[in-house]
Amino acid sequence: MAKRQQQTKTKNNSKKPTGKIRIIPLGGLGEIGKNMTVVEYEQDIIVIDCGIGFPDEEMPGIDFVIPDFSYLEANKDRIRGVFLTHGHEDHIGGVPYLLRTLNLPVYGTPLTLGILRGKLEEQPLPWQADLKTVKPGDKIRAGAMTVEFIHVNHSIADACALAVHTPLGVLVHTGDFKLDTTPIEGEMMNLVRFGELGKQGVLLLMCESTNAERPGYTPSEKKVGASLEYIFTTHTKKRIIIATFSSNVHRVQQIINTSARHKRKVAITGRSMINIVNAAVELGYMKVPNGVLVDINEIKRYKPNELTLITTGSQGEPMSALYRMAFSDHSQVALDANDVVVLSASAIPGNEKLVGRIINELSRNEVEVLHDAFVEVHVSGHACQEELKLMQALTKPKYFMPVHGENRHLSANRDLARYLGMNDRNIFISEIGKVLEIDASGAKWGGTVPAGKVLVDGYGVGDVGNIVLNDRLHLSQDGLIVVVATMDCTARLLLSGPDLISRGFVFVRENEDLMEGARKVAENTINDVLTFSRRRDPVDRMLLKRRIKDDLAKYIYQKTKRKPMILPVIMDL
Amino acid sequence: MAKRQQQTKTKNNSKKPTGKIRIIPLGGLGEIGKNMTVVEYEQDIIVIDCGIGFPDEEMPGIDFVIPDFSYLEANKDRIRGVFLTHGHEDHIGGVPYLLRTLNLPVYGTPLTLGILRGKLEEQPLPWQADLKTVKPGDKIRAGAMTVEFIHVNHSIADACALAVHTPLGVLVHTGDFKLDTTPIEGEMMNLVRFGELGKQGVLLLMCESTNAERPGYTPSEKKVGASLEYIFTTHTKKRIIIATFSSNVHRVQQIINTSARHKRKVAITGRSMINIVNAAVELGYMKVPNGVLVDINEIKRYKPNELTLITTGSQGEPMSALYRMAFSDHSQVALDANDVVVLSASAIPGNEKLVGRIINELSRNEVEVLHDAFVEVHVSGHACQEELKLMQALTKPKYFMPVHGENRHLSANRDLARYLGMNDRNIFISEIGKVLEIDASGAKWGGTVPAGKVLVDGYGVGDVGNIVLNDRLHLSQDGLIVVVATMDCTARLLLSGPDLISRGFVFVRENEDLMEGARKVAENTINDVLTFSRRRDPVDRMLLKRRIKDDLAKYIYQKTKRKPMILPVIMDL
Repeated sequence: MAKRQQQTKTKNNSKKPTGKIRIIPLGGLGEIGKNMTVVEYEQDIIVIDCGIGFPDEEMPGIDFVIPDFSYLEANKDRIRGVFLTHGHEDHIGGVPYLLRTLNLPVYGTPLTLGILRGKLEEQPLPWQADLKTVKPGDKIRAGAMTVEFIHVNHSIADACALAVHTPLGVLVHTGDFKLDTTPIEGEMMNLVRFGELGKQGVLLLMCESTNAERPGYTPSEKKVGASLEYIFTTHTKKRIIIATFSSNVHRVQQIINTSARHKRKVAITGRSMINIVNAAVELGYMKVPNGVLVDINEIKRYKPNELTLITTGSQGEPMSALYRMAFSDHSQVALDANDVVVLSASAIPGNEKLVGRIINELSRNEVEVLHDAFVEVHVSGHACQEELKLMQALTKPKYFMPVHGENRHLSANRDLARYLGMNDRNIFISEIGKVLEIDASGAKWGGTVPAGKVLVDGYGVGDVGNIVLNDRLHLSQDGLIVVVATMDCTARLLLSGPDLISRGFVFVRENEDLMEGARKVAENTINDVLTFSRRRDPVDRMLLKRRIKDDLAKYIYQKTKRKPMILPVIMDL
Repeated sequence: MAKRQQQTKTKNNSKKPTGKIRIIPLGGLGEIGKNMTVVEYEQDIIVIDCGIGFPDEEMPGIDFVIPDFSYLEANKDRIRGVFLTHGHEDHIGGVPYLLRTLNLPVYGTPLTLGILRGKLEEQPLPWQADLKTVKPGDKIRAGAMTVEFIHVNHSIADACALAVHTPLGVLVHTGDFKLDTTPIEGEMMNLVRFGELGKQGVLLLMCESTNAERPGYTPSEKKVGASLEYIFTTHTKKRIIIATFSSNVHRVQQIINTSARHKRKVAITGRSMINIVNAAVELGYMKVPNGVLVDINEIKRYKPNELTLITTGSQGEPMSALYRMAFSDHSQVALDANDVVVLSASAIPGNEKLVGRIINELSRNEVEVLHDAFVEVHVSGHACQEELKLMQALTKPKYFMPVHGENRHLSANRDLARYLGMNDRNIFISEIGKVLEIDASGAKWGGTVPAGKVLVDGYGVGDVGNIVLNDRLHLSQDGLIVVVATMDCTARLLLSGPDLISRGFVFVRENEDLMEGARKVAENTINDVLTFSRRRDPVDRMLLKRRIKDDLAKYIYQKTKRKPMILPVIMDL
């Protein structure tokens, strides 16, 4: 390690570049998803990925989360381009939002840009998006930097890592990757190129951390093929329904191939599955033997054992095709004991209960269910510990920054670097908005920039913040009581009310005494304020509202041990 | 199988009993938790267990769920007693609610009743509870039935299965069980007695299904001891903090023993952990060597490597001791790189994210975390497939009913019975409220009784139903807008307003245009109704409210793609 560091230093010193690199994660650290990293060299900025994240249980009603772009908006003239590693939502889903205000060139491989184009059609921009197709090996000039695309394996085709060549040295960003020595289509990841870069000297490795807690190697996608073969061979009398991620083109290809071998027709259901299969076939990433695909509306013409269905819904998403099949709400498919459902995916943390709900409903209806606890019908797309070590050993970085993961994953990736002998001083566990600066003298923290979670709810981007979320959470726990009264505030007269309306609190018809008691409390409070506050002044509405809130909250809690939101409305006539 | 059935038949026929058994699950089937089974023989009723369940994500604000007792309330004079298998919440947590209206004798082993007593102290009854202590082997007369307690292994001490002897034959209810050949305290489960009953002829086996999807055997609790030994040996310089279920007395005993062997003092934190350790020591279920326990307030007197802390919070519960430690909110314990936290429990489905949150926060603070993915620091308390098969093979039941589990687990348990050769006609997958009738001529479904989930929210039992829950869910998704106007409905005059108040919808200060637009929509609607509806009648308030709701909802959805709850309030002066 010491020797390697010296080599890098010597090399840098001989050139004596005076510039400074700044690494600014805007998403994907301390969280799963919304991956986005900004790399700066002096006046030039590049952006690596721009994904969405999913809302957690403390964000009710939120559709998804995107990174805070304000740093980029403030520095828009310096941005040379957006470089996409692959086409998953958590890497490209935020691009349409970024491009709304910043018209930037976007570089990606054909499948990545194909999926992005689909998104841009759904959310048109004020201008024509500047999408630039690249292929692995391409090097793109971006100001003083050059960005090189390097082929990696992942659970989507056409995935790349990036090498960013700067005057100070090379930065490697792995994107999402795994090592697959037997990929379904195309090559094993380009280990040689990572090794070459390592030999020349890598200044900083930013390495994904998703599976950093898992020992060993991630199995090859081909392993799933063997499991599918086993399932098709042992279920010759049943219709086979397989749910998987629509973007896993190679998985879908394997299901089609296995079906064709077993003389089964394949029908596809679920909007995103149909879209991606069409795009993948069109772009040449998927090959469907003639006559294998049939329309979902034609499946009645075939016996169960002549059919395979490929469907969305592997995460238990309500309204997905599989969910609708399970709950007898799918217009073309009804499931029974003649069906076997294969969940060719693992539940993303947080989705276990949704997936469980489908399994339970299928079990109730005597539908056989196979998932990865029984048969290896899914493999991860992310590198496990041995592959992560391999990446570090090949690139031999001077500095190391784990990216893509919650803190537990980043820490586990750091532990691997330690195990390989890296000094703690050279390992940087960062967080979103935290700047790492590297210059000829070394690497150090360099302050922060604005970063965070921007919530998307319907058309609204960022209009729901903590106050609104806290209100939603409060309302969801105990509901609310609205107290309305009409007064002549100047004359200090109660003209009408108080009336109480509640929602989400108790079933009013069965709790009339409680609600009438609450109404009386509000009435007494109003009379009390009218009588005892200073008589010549108009009623202080703020004070009155606070008193109603306090008195009512106390009464309600005493009676029910609940804390509904209390909303007093005083109309002044 | 055929031979066995014949034996049972012959025996029954010789006595020719004319009575009828009814098996009525009131909880624990098609769900996890709130286990409760009613067994009737003619005029006599016994109740097996009465547990609570936890609310799912569609029950915001609910504390927990208990079974619907209305069938028992309607038949209270026939109930001969409540028989508890063990002291876990999902088997005894509902007893205080049941005893509020029904003063019934409750039978259980000392630890089970000890834990129940603690609950009854927190929620006193109108009468002295009639708790009757039993020990394994005891047989209790209950009208025409006799209930026999049989020792089993489980993750809590003093657990029993029940054999219910009826004139028609023996029913076996396993409760929760596992087979532990090397239990920490006491004996292996009483396999011999199950075998004897099987020889004599078991009419119906009700067998728990929790782990029916898992192949093999559940490891012995002793295995955890070996893992603890390994952790203590490899972490001689750190303080060791172990989180586990407070009711797992044997686990806590092992942690204390290992600590004593390694010359560590043990401090206990977390209310339920302290309560249960005290109760267990008092009842003789736990033995603490002299001088090992120290008060949590005294831990500053010891070096990190002289201490073990045992804590609650293994499920990531906010406000638990471990959660407070992780988030630097525990008054006696602050964690850092000198600590190792051991999660000696697995996350109950649905709790993964909460547990993950603690692991992330600990990782962020450089605290080492060990959980069952790395070391076997937890074993299940429930029988896996081989043990379930063993139970069936020993008891050789004529009829089989899987209990305790979601449909996926019940189905998996059914599949085991099929594998052992049982005919589908003799297997009954039931659901709550569904009656199985058995008489001399055989077993068949016998209608339903009221059953369901009664929600407990604060002091309220059953006052929150679907309407209230749906309102809470709606409010949590998009918040609400209250529209208030004061009118003279008879004179058809708008006197004040409309005013709009929103909560959980948008941050109003940054969306004044939207809210003003909405106010105008409401105003126009009101004027419209005042102008164009029949002029001589007073205003139809219902109609007006519906119009306001519709027009406003349409406007809001167009502008935001959101559907907040809209609550029009018209005050008539």
